[in-house]
Amino acid sequence: MPGDSIGHLFRLTTFGESHGPALGAVVEGCPAGMPLSEADLQPDLDRRRPGQSRYTTQRREEDRVRILSGVFEGRTTGTAIGLLIENGDPRSKDYAAIQDLFRPGHADYTYLKKYGLRDYRGGGRSSARETAMRVAGGAIARKLLASVGVRVRGAVIAIGEEGIDRAAWDWDETERNPFFSPDAGAVPRFAALLEEVMRAGDSVGALVEVAAEGVPAGWGEPVFDRLDAALAHALMGINAVKGVEIGDGLAAARAWGSQFADEMAPNPTGGEPLFLANHAGGILGGISSGQTILARLAVKPTSSIRIPRRTVNLQGEAREIVTHGRHDPCVGIRAVPVAEAMMALVLGDFFLQHRARQGFAFD
Amino acid sequence: MPGDSIGHLFRLTTFGESHGPALGAVVEGCPAGMPLSEADLQPDLDRRRPGQSRYTTQRREEDRVRILSGVFEGRTTGTAIGLLIENGDPRSKDYAAIQDLFRPGHADYTYLKKYGLRDYRGGGRSSARETAMRVAGGAIARKLLASVGVRVRGAVIAIGEEGIDRAAWDWDETERNPFFSPDAGAVPRFAALLEEVMRAGDSVGALVEVAAEGVPAGWGEPVFDRLDAALAHALMGINAVKGVEIGDGLAAARAWGSQFADEMAPNPTGGEPLFLANHAGGILGGISSGQTILARLAVKPTSSIRIPRRTVNLQGEAREIVTHGRHDPCVGIRAVPVAEAMMALVLGDFFLQHRARQGFAFD
Amino acid sequence: MPGDSIGHLFRLTTFGESHGPALGAVVEGCPAGMPLSEADLQPDLDRRRPGQSRYTTQRREEDRVRILSGVFEGRTTGTAIGLLIENGDPRSKDYAAIQDLFRPGHADYTYLKKYGLRDYRGGGRSSARETAMRVAGGAIARKLLASVGVRVRGAVIAIGEEGIDRAAWDWDETERNPFFSPDAGAVPRFAALLEEVMRAGDSVGALVEVAAEGVPAGWGEPVFDRLDAALAHALMGINAVKGVEIGDGLAAARAWGSQFADEMAPNPTGGEPLFLANHAGGILGGISSGQTILARLAVKPTSSIRIPRRTVNLQGEAREIVTHGRHDPCVGIRAVPVAEAMMALVLGDFFLQHRARQGFAFD
Amino acid sequence: MPGDSIGHLFRLTTFGESHGPALGAVVEGCPAGMPLSEADLQPDLDRRRPGQSRYTTQRREEDRVRILSGVFEGRTTGTAIGLLIENGDPRSKDYAAIQDLFRPGHADYTYLKKYGLRDYRGGGRSSARETAMRVAGGAIARKLLASVGVRVRGAVIAIGEEGIDRAAWDWDETERNPFFSPDAGAVPRFAALLEEVMRAGDSVGALVEVAAEGVPAGWGEPVFDRLDAALAHALMGINAVKGVEIGDGLAAARAWGSQFADEMAPNPTGGEPLFLANHAGGILGGISSGQTILARLAVKPTSSIRIPRRTVNLQGEAREIVTHGRHDPCVGIRAVPVAEAMMALVLGDFFLQHRARQGFAFD
Repeated sequence: MPGDSIGHLFRLTTFGESHGPALGAVVEGCPAGMPLSEADLQPDLDRRRPGQSRYTTQRREEDRVRILSGVFEGRTTGTAIGLLIENGDPRSKDYAAIQDLFRPGHADYTYLKKYGLRDYRGGGRSSARETAMRVAGGAIARKLLASVGVRVRGAVIAIGEEGIDRAAWDWDETERNPFFSPDAGAVPRFAALLEEVMRAGDSVGALVEVAAEGVPAGWGEPVFDRLDAALAHALMGINAVKGVEIGDGLAAARAWGSQFADEMAPNPTGGEPLFLANHAGGILGGISSGQTILARLAVKPTSSIRIPRRTVNLQGEAREIVTHGRHDPCVGIRAVPVAEAMMALVLGDFFLQHRARQGFAFD
Repeated sequence: MPGDSIGHLFRLTTFGESHGPALGAVVEGCPAGMPLSEADLQPDLDRRRPGQSRYTTQRREEDRVRILSGVFEGRTTGTAIGLLIENGDPRSKDYAAIQDLFRPGHADYTYLKKYGLRDYRGGGRSSARETAMRVAGGAIARKLLASVGVRVRGAVIAIGEEGIDRAAWDWDETERNPFFSPDAGAVPRFAALLEEVMRAGDSVGALVEVAAEGVPAGWGEPVFDRLDAALAHALMGINAVKGVEIGDGLAAARAWGSQFADEMAPNPTGGEPLFLANHAGGILGGISSGQTILARLAVKPTSSIRIPRRTVNLQGEAREIVTHGRHDPCVGIRAVPVAEAMMALVLGDFFLQHRARQGFAFD
Repeated sequence: MPGDSIGHLFRLTTFGESHGPALGAVVEGCPAGMPLSEADLQPDLDRRRPGQSRYTTQRREEDRVRILSGVFEGRTTGTAIGLLIENGDPRSKDYAAIQDLFRPGHADYTYLKKYGLRDYRGGGRSSARETAMRVAGGAIARKLLASVGVRVRGAVIAIGEEGIDRAAWDWDETERNPFFSPDAGAVPRFAALLEEVMRAGDSVGALVEVAAEGVPAGWGEPVFDRLDAALAHALMGINAVKGVEIGDGLAAARAWGSQFADEMAPNPTGGEPLFLANHAGGILGGISSGQTILARLAVKPTSSIRIPRRTVNLQGEAREIVTHGRHDPCVGIRAVPVAEAMMALVLGDFFLQHRARQGFAFD
Repeated sequence: MPGDSIGHLFRLTTFGESHGPALGAVVEGCPAGMPLSEADLQPDLDRRRPGQSRYTTQRREEDRVRILSGVFEGRTTGTAIGLLIENGDPRSKDYAAIQDLFRPGHADYTYLKKYGLRDYRGGGRSSARETAMRVAGGAIARKLLASVGVRVRGAVIAIGEEGIDRAAWDWDETERNPFFSPDAGAVPRFAALLEEVMRAGDSVGALVEVAAEGVPAGWGEPVFDRLDAALAHALMGINAVKGVEIGDGLAAARAWGSQFADEMAPNPTGGEPLFLANHAGGILGGISSGQTILARLAVKPTSSIRIPRRTVNLQGEAREIVTHGRHDPCVGIRAVPVAEAMMALVLGDFFLQHRARQGFAFD
């Protein structure tokens, strides 16, 4: 299958390159009757947008999204929702200098090998600019999920070697600082590190955590489309992500069973039984357990840096490359709304899949 | 979509429970003309089979696979390949004691919540026994890949806190010790740790690495079906896996860009340019780069342990549970052939997808 | 996608050749809790089975189906249902004489061209024997549909130039004669025609009609997966079918609008409005209207006849071919349970798809 | 799956309503390097466009298509191709009078029942206006097919009771008259009939034939995704189509085997063997045989007519309805480029699917 779609019952298909005329998307499968307008999409797009602080790229991208179909008199009609963002005036000439070079860590070489030609203007389809449409589509999924009490939020929990104090976690704080940090105490350390990175013309990686609260038990389609597998697919598919963890993640490899499996206890208020811990990240056997869904993703440092690197040109000759222009010192920061969107898209899809087969009373 | 299938052009669909009459699978999309017999499948099944050493479960499972269709006169016909493993005499009575309890860390609770009823005999569909069919299907993918020079191998690189010395890596060693360890020096340490775990009636996690050599540049279908995303989906979808890394994985979050992006240099022998490192794990922009594909997965400790744990029964009342019976102290070991199979299935599928659109000469 | 699967949320995947060891199938997506046993599948298999009368092939096929998974204590578990029919002792030697010839009207030539080799034993995968698994899977879909009051039935309405009198339609009659004729008056004419065809060593085509009663308004997924489009896909995909009609079908091309569109009127009993005719066959805009769903399929005459035909051998040399052995003089008869099964599979799938997005109350 | 996509490896996804701001589409999977510009798409859009003669609706639709992505420096890049047609100034007020009524033969009732609300402006998503995007996507598929010598063409072969003389078939003639008639002799009869229909304020059905020449043997994916099944799906999924035939189609039901199966003979020029007839329509066992692929579709008469019809309003009360405005007296005419597009989309997809698994040399 061509890889521009994600989801089965709730599906996002995107198109568009960083320096083409527009980005677009089709969102299929959203139930009819849901109130929806551009105002529901724009806030998340603005959170992802460059230039929100001195710590992200200073490129100007307006990212004004238009809904072209699927909404009538303020509500979804149940048919395909078309979305469009016209690209502004891109500075394509910035890229003339590097059109014959493979930028290390970028997709230049692999796109050329796969397709035989490539759009060298800012990465073309491989540019992170493409993620704007994921965020727009994700915002629709979020609204669907909100109607059943599910909320998806993300945060940066580490930049380079600097991490947060989990005891200080405050979701409200994530919207008050330029790093989506849930720990106010980490903000000065993140800022100092990024100043150092920017002075060096370098970049740095980050660790992002996304959480979904309110997911009821039962979402996930084993054995291959487990909820954790689908989340791993969606999150690893974000540009620059190199690792995905669910719950305790990698730490599970070092753990003993007596410490790891989440014990259960009666619910004193009479509802569903309680879990006494959440090492599993809210997923057991590939199905949501009713606990908070927890995932983390490791975002590599931007490959576009001002420090000279060795590479080759199209003819295979040795060259040195320095990336000028306006780049993020830490793409992990702007990955937060993208990760939230991807988690929302997966959950929206699995919600509908689960719903399709629920509630039968045979006999 | 129901979750019993994986892949698009090369697709595996499985069925079967741990204590039902049989496990089965359908492999679709294998090109015609490939030599194939049960002898191609059995070795991988035997590597996954329990009872190969004192460090894996002592259950008796013959795992004799039969090919029921899709092969004629020793070659694939291009049509669906049916596979079947009859289950031997399962000791279902072992499970009577726990049929009213939710085993912590297992899928008991989530299957019941999702489906409204569950097959409590050894986990039913959620049992790792299901992975036998992944291994059988993966063996067919491996053979297809071998025809174009691709080889997939896996190893255990850590059990609990004990790790290998990567400098001592020897692929041949993986088949000489009961841990799939590529480092002979780690074997006594792994053995000692597992003895301790077994004495304690406990279990322990492990870290598995899988590598694919010989993958040419160009496989992967951005933007959502990147090769890394598909590998994450396939590997996170293995029972007990809680984390997946590509290349440097989680370490990317701590790295600086000047150290991370793999530089390139001319190939002194005149072929494709060389990469001077492989932090990326052989994938750039979601497309294979021609380097070795590297993935790691964290496998949690088995939840079936002899140490009492707190849980609830179907009525929500507090209970204590102890799992008797024959269980693996470290399921990560037997995850090696399963991880290899999943990587092979993904690569086989992306190989065909890439092939479909390659080699056009327009004009 | 390999073509051995049909359906999205309710999906059937089949394998097996006419002369291989077994036929098998996987049915995914059936909701949990539905009572199911082999006794639910066998009656439809028996209706399709050869040798039920002197007007169908006298081959002996037991077609005993086993359920291998997905059912526990008499109810579906929501997981994949594995099905298996072991083939009896096939008389493969019958085919030795024709293994180098392309039988006109058969798939011999196209399978060889596509796959480069072919299983010449009775058509291999292209044999109508494969449809046994469609019938088995369809029986599960039927049971699911019955739980919401939907009933699928089929009939032969013409054989060659002999047709039924629609005014005499009696569904019960279809199970009382060997032709699935709903008109008892047509039975002697059908019998006389088939005697003539059999004496001539020839074969004849037939027209089959399938109807689904009780389908509520709303099933179908425009714009491409309209209910009529999906039915056309499923029915045209049956061996030997060359045409599919919905409602008035081909006659629509000759009609005037003032005679064709089904008018509506108030329901005197206060329920949904009434349609005053059903030219549309129960589908408007690709969505079920609440009327009976009506489809017809034209089944070509069997290509296996005792009359000599011109053909070529593998070397491209002119040859004459006569098919001996036990063949149906009119495969359209046994196509009835297959067509019912295909309609049931489509409806079962669209039922679940519709259900996934229904019943939301936003705001 | 939501139904706005068609195809697997070559896939079209569309969005847009008749009276929304724009129609759009995403074409995925087109191989890289193919020359492509808007000039390749516009001619087919113009053939479908209203107002080309007095026999089609006089609505003004510019249908200027823009390519928004996937093409760089005049060639496809292998990534998603975004397409957009801005809608002109729609006369939405035309529809105010009928927004409370169910138009007989339209999807008004079924859309409302399915989605709970509907866009009543000209049919919204159910309008045939949506087919503009099929034609745009189909034009890309055509160009891909042309690169391997495949050509898809269509014609109207009957309007109401008036048919063509097949002996007079001239493909060039189809572009010289307003009916896509391949027989110049039928043109006056078609014109006279349509004048009569228009005078009566009525509409009439039509029969359309589409043919694909140059398709090599081997395309099609049995057992469910046979080429004929996929064509039936695509063609029956066009608005107003009620029947689909392959080759002899419905006539197969009346035929005897000795007359139907296409005999074969040696090729005197030494190439592939010849077929002595083409009753099968170029498809055997669901796979192309190398002969011309032939399909026919029956298009019902437009339901929008000036003759009063009985219906009900949203409250279920009896009403009479007359459709004013600018409607086609015979939508079958403008269905020709749509049918060509759908056949091209299917063939483009199956071409790539077949290609993925061809050309292996094992051992």
